[in-house]
Amino acid sequence: MIYYWIDMIGTFMFAISGALAAWDKKMYHDIFGVSFTAFVTAIGGGTLRDVILGIHPIVWVKDQSYIIAIACGVLVTVLFRRYLLRYRRSLFLFDTIGIGFYTILGVQKSLAFGVNPWAAVIMGMMSAIFGGVIRDTLVNEIPLIFSRQIYATACLAGATLYILLGYTGIDPNINTIIGIILIISIRLFSLRKGWSLPYLEKARK
Amino acid sequence: MIYYWIDMIGTFMFAISGALAAWDKKMYHDIFGVSFTAFVTAIGGGTLRDVILGIHPIVWVKDQSYIIAIACGVLVTVLFRRYLLRYRRSLFLFDTIGIGFYTILGVQKSLAFGVNPWAAVIMGMMSAIFGGVIRDTLVNEIPLIFSRQIYATACLAGATLYILLGYTGIDPNINTIIGIILIISIRLFSLRKGWSLPYLEKARK
Amino acid sequence: MIYYWIDMIGTFMFAISGALAAWDKKMYHDIFGVSFTAFVTAIGGGTLRDVILGIHPIVWVKDQSYIIAIACGVLVTVLFRRYLLRYRRSLFLFDTIGIGFYTILGVQKSLAFGVNPWAAVIMGMMSAIFGGVIRDTLVNEIPLIFSRQIYATACLAGATLYILLGYTGIDPNINTIIGIILIISIRLFSLRKGWSLPYLEKARK
Repeated sequence: MIYYWIDMIGTFMFAISGALAAWDKKMYHDIFGVSFTAFVTAIGGGTLRDVILGIHPIVWVKDQSYIIAIACGVLVTVLFRRYLLRYRRSLFLFDTIGIGFYTILGVQKSLAFGVNPWAAVIMGMMSAIFGGVIRDTLVNEIPLIFSRQIYATACLAGATLYILLGYTGIDPNINTIIGIILIISIRLFSLRKGWSLPYLEKARK
Repeated sequence: MIYYWIDMIGTFMFAISGALAAWDKKMYHDIFGVSFTAFVTAIGGGTLRDVILGIHPIVWVKDQSYIIAIACGVLVTVLFRRYLLRYRRSLFLFDTIGIGFYTILGVQKSLAFGVNPWAAVIMGMMSAIFGGVIRDTLVNEIPLIFSRQIYATACLAGATLYILLGYTGIDPNINTIIGIILIISIRLFSLRKGWSLPYLEKARK
Repeated sequence: MIYYWIDMIGTFMFAISGALAAWDKKMYHDIFGVSFTAFVTAIGGGTLRDVILGIHPIVWVKDQSYIIAIACGVLVTVLFRRYLLRYRRSLFLFDTIGIGFYTILGVQKSLAFGVNPWAAVIMGMMSAIFGGVIRDTLVNEIPLIFSRQIYATACLAGATLYILLGYTGIDPNINTIIGIILIISIRLFSLRKGWSLPYLEKARK
C-alpha cells in the first residue's frame, strides 16, 4: 500500500517536472506538447523498468490512477505555473523528489522479481533517471545525468544503502524512508556545495 | 482477418514514408540506409505497442509477411520514386493513411488485452506516431508531433471516438472505418485550413 | 557453454569500446559518465533483443557475470587507456570484434525462440549494432550505421551465411566461428579498401 502511494507521488512529481520543462520552452507550448512531455516523463522510467524486468501488464496500462495522477500534475502546473516557474529551482526540486521516490521503488520491484542486487541498484537508478532523460531530450536540453552535477550517483548511493541496510533486517518502511532522504539530501547538498565527481585525466594521444 | 490487412496496409504505407524520407536526404542515400529507415518506421510503433502490452511473439518476428510488406514498400519507392517525390505532399499522405490505420489497430489490440480505455487511447496514438518519430529523428527532422500541426491530436480524437462508439454496440468493422476516416480527415482538413491547437501563454518569470 | 563465453567476450569488448568513446570526449569525462556509457553500450543490443523476443529474465538482470565483465572492461580501459587510445583504430577494433560475436549470438538466440529466418537475420544485426548506436548518440557522434562505411551490412552478410550454412547440417560451433570471422573480415577489408554500398541516385524533383 505504501509502495502504491510512493508510485503515485513520484508519478505526480515527474508529471509536474515534465509539464514545467515543456512549458518553459516556447517550442512545445501547445496543450498537447505540455501534456505529452508530462506523460512521457512520468511513465518513462517505470515503463523501462517493467519492460526490462518483464512485468506485465505495465501499471499505467492496467490502472487508470496513474493517468489521473499525471492529469492532476498537468492541471496543477497549468493553475500554479507562475508560482512554480518564479523560482528557477522548482523544476529541479520536483525532479529531485521524483528520483528519490522512484529509485527506491525501482530497487524494491527489482528485488521482488528475483533480480541480483547489483542489477537491482542499476535498475533503481535507471527507472529514476530515464523519464528525465526523455524529458530533457524532448526539450533539447543536455540530460542532467551528463551534466557535471551529482545526479545519477545520488540514486546509486541511495539504492546501495537500501540494499545494504536490507541485510540488517531493518523495518522495510523505515529503510525506504532513509533511502529516499539520502538521495534527496545528496542531490540538494551537492548542488549547493558545487560538488562533482572526480574527473578522469584526459589521456594524451 | 480485416485487422490483418489493416496491419499489412499500414506497414506498407509506413515503409514507403520511411524510404521516401531517407531517400530525400542525401545523408542516408545508400541502399542500407533507405531500407533500414523504411523498416524501423514500419515496425517501430507496433513493436513499442507489443512490448509495452507484453504481446509475444511480436508480429514481424513470427510472421514473414510484415518483412515482405516492407520489402514491397521499398521496391515501390525505388521504382516510382520520381512520381512519389514530385509532389511534396506524398510523404505526408502515406504517413497520414498509416497513422489512421495504426491508431485504430492499436486501440483494438490494447482493448483485446484488457487495457483500460484511457490507456487504450494513448496506446493507439503512441503506436501510430512512434514509427514516424523514429523516422524523423533518423533523418534529422523535428518530429511531426512537435510541429504546430494537428497530428497526434487527430489520432487521439479518432481513438476516443472509436472507444465511445464501441459502447453503443455499433458493428466493429463500421466503427473501424469511421475511426480511420475521422483521423485522416482531421489531419487533412487541419493542414489545409492551417489549424493548430491553442497555445498556452508563456508565463512571465 | 561456448555461447556463454561468446556473450561474455562480446560484453567485455563492447564495454571497452563504450568506455573509450566516453573517455575520448571531454564532456563525459567523469567516472560515472565513462562507466554509464560502457554499461549501456555493452547491454544495449542484448537488452533490445531479449525485450523484442520476450526472453525474461534478461541475462544481465539475473546473472551478475555480465556486470562483472563490464566492470572488467572499464578497469582495463582505465589501466591501459594510453595504449588503447594511442591507436585511433582501437575503438574501431573492439567494436568490430563485438559486432561479430553479437550478431551470431543474436541469430542463435532468435532461432532458438522460433523466430522466422528473415527476422533472425535482422535481430542478429540489430542486437549487434544497437549498443553502438546508443554509444555514438551519447557521445554526439553520427552512428556508425549511418556512415558511408560497410558496417551493419557486414552483420547482415554474416547472419545470412550462418542461416544458409545451418541448412547444410554443418557443425554449429564451426558455423559460429565462420560467421564471426566473415563479419570481422568484411568490416576490416571494406574499411581498408574504402568500400561502400552503391549509392542511389537522388531523384530530381
